[in-house]
Amino acid sequence: MNWMDEISWSPEGLVPAIAQDVASGRVLMFAWMNRDALARTIESGEAHYWSRSRQRLWHKGEESGHTQRVQELRLDCDGDVVLLSVEQQGGIACHTGRERCFFRRYEDGRWVVTDPVLKDPGDIYSK
Amino acid sequence: MNWMDEISWSPEGLVPAIAQDVASGRVLMFAWMNRDALARTIESGEAHYWSRSRQRLWHKGEESGHTQRVQELRLDCDGDVVLLSVEQQGGIACHTGRERCFFRRYEDGRWVVTDPVLKDPGDIYSK
Repeated sequence: MNWMDEISWSPEGLVPAIAQDVASGRVLMFAWMNRDALARTIESGEAHYWSRSRQRLWHKGEESGHTQRVQELRLDCDGDVVLLSVEQQGGIACHTGRERCFFRRYEDGRWVVTDPVLKDPGDIYSK
Repeated sequence: MNWMDEISWSPEGLVPAIAQDVASGRVLMFAWMNRDALARTIESGEAHYWSRSRQRLWHKGEESGHTQRVQELRLDCDGDVVLLSVEQQGGIACHTGRERCFFRRYEDGRWVVTDPVLKDPGDIYSK
């Protein structure tokens, strides 16, 4: 697959992936993909990542139901970062139950939580 | 500096940084920061990164004039990625002379260039 070879994969065979909400424009999360994750993302239309902590393929939302339908996939100038525009199911991308992972803002030497928890993680992952 | 210690720095002492245009909401670029780069970003209000290819501090726009005034700095749930909302001077973030680095879109098995070159890189960097 030639388009995959145009990506500059890291020595570990990964590429950073940024997911942005197609409606709000908010950056929701940052994760990593390997070739398999990217191939499955294209095939299924739903975001798949490589979980570095669990060392396995991760179909985003597989437990929570908070899948991401990919509307657009972009590659940067150096070919070493991808950007996904997604429809975020449930409006929750973060495992803390918030819309996005970037829920802390720098203010005068500290990180301030600015975004509310929309759903209790205990309820999200107890299914 | 406690807020810096809340960041989960990589073994190389780096953290991924995503720069987003505060006006358009477009994701402009992706780079890396070390502690020094982040400290200087906060102090100066202008984005500084760590260039992995050149192994040195990089004040974005130092050659091109295309500096980034930081309006907001965010940290993600795991504390290992930062997100910057920036005013992009000159409206050009990419070294190719385009607004953003993510100027290629995936379409049916290939990467298609969708964004125009706004300024010839030869003119940007010849000063």
